[in-house]
Amino acid sequence: MPRRESTLADLGEAALIRRIARRAGHPESATWPQAIGDDAAILRPRKTEDLVLSTDAQVEGVHFRFGRESPRTIGRRALAVNLSDLAAMGARPVGALLSLCAPAELTLSVFDGLVAGFVDEARRFDCPLVGGNLSKARECSLTVTVVGRVKRGQALRRKGLRPGDLLFVTGELGAAALARLRADRSGGQLRRTPTPRIKAGLALARITGIRACIDLSDGLATDLGHLLEARGLGAEIDPCRLPTPRGFAAACARLGLDATTLQVAGGEDYELLFGLPASSTWAKPGRLGERLGVSVSQIGHVLRQPGIRGLPKIPAGHHF
Amino acid sequence: MPRRESTLADLGEAALIRRIARRAGHPESATWPQAIGDDAAILRPRKTEDLVLSTDAQVEGVHFRFGRESPRTIGRRALAVNLSDLAAMGARPVGALLSLCAPAELTLSVFDGLVAGFVDEARRFDCPLVGGNLSKARECSLTVTVVGRVKRGQALRRKGLRPGDLLFVTGELGAAALARLRADRSGGQLRRTPTPRIKAGLALARITGIRACIDLSDGLATDLGHLLEARGLGAEIDPCRLPTPRGFAAACARLGLDATTLQVAGGEDYELLFGLPASSTWAKPGRLGERLGVSVSQIGHVLRQPGIRGLPKIPAGHHF
Repeated sequence: MPRRESTLADLGEAALIRRIARRAGHPESATWPQAIGDDAAILRPRKTEDLVLSTDAQVEGVHFRFGRESPRTIGRRALAVNLSDLAAMGARPVGALLSLCAPAELTLSVFDGLVAGFVDEARRFDCPLVGGNLSKARECSLTVTVVGRVKRGQALRRKGLRPGDLLFVTGELGAAALARLRADRSGGQLRRTPTPRIKAGLALARITGIRACIDLSDGLATDLGHLLEARGLGAEIDPCRLPTPRGFAAACARLGLDATTLQVAGGEDYELLFGLPASSTWAKPGRLGERLGVSVSQIGHVLRQPGIRGLPKIPAGHHF
Repeated sequence: MPRRESTLADLGEAALIRRIARRAGHPESATWPQAIGDDAAILRPRKTEDLVLSTDAQVEGVHFRFGRESPRTIGRRALAVNLSDLAAMGARPVGALLSLCAPAELTLSVFDGLVAGFVDEARRFDCPLVGGNLSKARECSLTVTVVGRVKRGQALRRKGLRPGDLLFVTGELGAAALARLRADRSGGQLRRTPTPRIKAGLALARITGIRACIDLSDGLATDLGHLLEARGLGAEIDPCRLPTPRGFAAACARLGLDATTLQVAGGEDYELLFGLPASSTWAKPGRLGERLGVSVSQIGHVLRQPGIRGLPKIPAGHHF
């Protein structure tokens, strides 16, 4: 008879926390005099900097399913989507807290995979896991809070666009949504995790004249709406300029999907969308791309009149 | 036919966030140049201070049930248990982030109650809600991250006890566990929320010689264990000295419960447990109580030999 796999209930909370702490290494530093192991983590901020804080959750059955992705991929993404918010602020990662909820019968190998994925991503972006919480729950979820730092007063904001500003995006749009739809239909594995554009965000924060920035989590239409609504503005988008992955249109056609709709409404691209005055010497995709270390496309411009022109109508997304 | 109650799905994410933001007021300040409404909140730290960060979750079916408590009580407790961690660090609240997961069919009145309770507690402790996240989920959960501040290097830690130190607790032990057991058995309502000992924590952080501090969330036995294990020490507790609510022993007897076991293992007291050298001029319950603004009891002392003497064996708690 096969031996039953160990579960969270077999180890108990204290042992599980020690297990995470071992995996996280010893994140104590001049910045974090105390990390995992006290009632709270202690952060020693620098004089000339602001801190930025954001939180985001990945929920079983909503953002992931265990059958469809490896626990490692899920753990990585839980941090990556949060780092993307730091990127959108032009911030450098400082540290992260992980609140992990899971059923007591979750196997230890799945738990280890989630933590390993998280810690891998944390190492990659120099964003140590400094604290968190473990709790029983019927469904699994990973709620992450990230802390970043920016030069005082230099955080990239959502508000700030003006009529005539040019709109740019990093990378390509649509691949994440396509991969998810394919996995949904085929029952296949989903391996993709977003790449938080931390370096691009840091470079953007140093560009004079940068007007506004957001990361594309809910899809271009929704997230562009957030930039515009802050000032009651509108935009004209040229769908032909949306940066499109190789073979994307053909793949969409095979699945009977409208490529532009998927690019605009699919979400989870975690690319940066930002605006620059047309007069800026930086307002050229090639020049921006070199500076940001990632391809950049100009996709449209800002209008005085509210509303977004040029995009197809979008259906409702992940959220309520 | 009665009109169907509005649900989260009826409003959609953007409207729900606006609803929370309205309820939270405008938390922008010199400390928070940006709160709700961007990719992240911006915190401007003070030069002479450290920040402390902690996260904790309240999960439906584990920490609360909607039938048994009002949404307002649940919302308050979600913040209160986090503030208790700040108290244990001797920190002053700076702000909080709330990640709320809920089914799309949750009614708006329950949602409003959760948020109202959270914001009430936030106002009471001057801890503005500055950011967060909304996500669909099958079960409801509130994951909170709090930020506090302490004079640089003055945070109260868990490690630091020495043999011979006297051990003290604030307030009384056992009432929370008793209330929960009573509600479980009678199916009655649970109205109790813990009082985070913020003022007591701030006063403790200014007492010279204070050795170690923790808040009692999992019960005296477990949490005292955390203070002791940091140094491989033990303790002797005098059960007769445990501060006991009026009528507690009789109420336990009526329910067939051992009063001391409930006081030691019940958890959720959210009182502070701390140590002082016996030679400290502060090591007197009366004097401490005046300074901390809450009753204080001396319950035992620290031993060189590992293990806790004087307490009954405890059963497993809430966690894995």
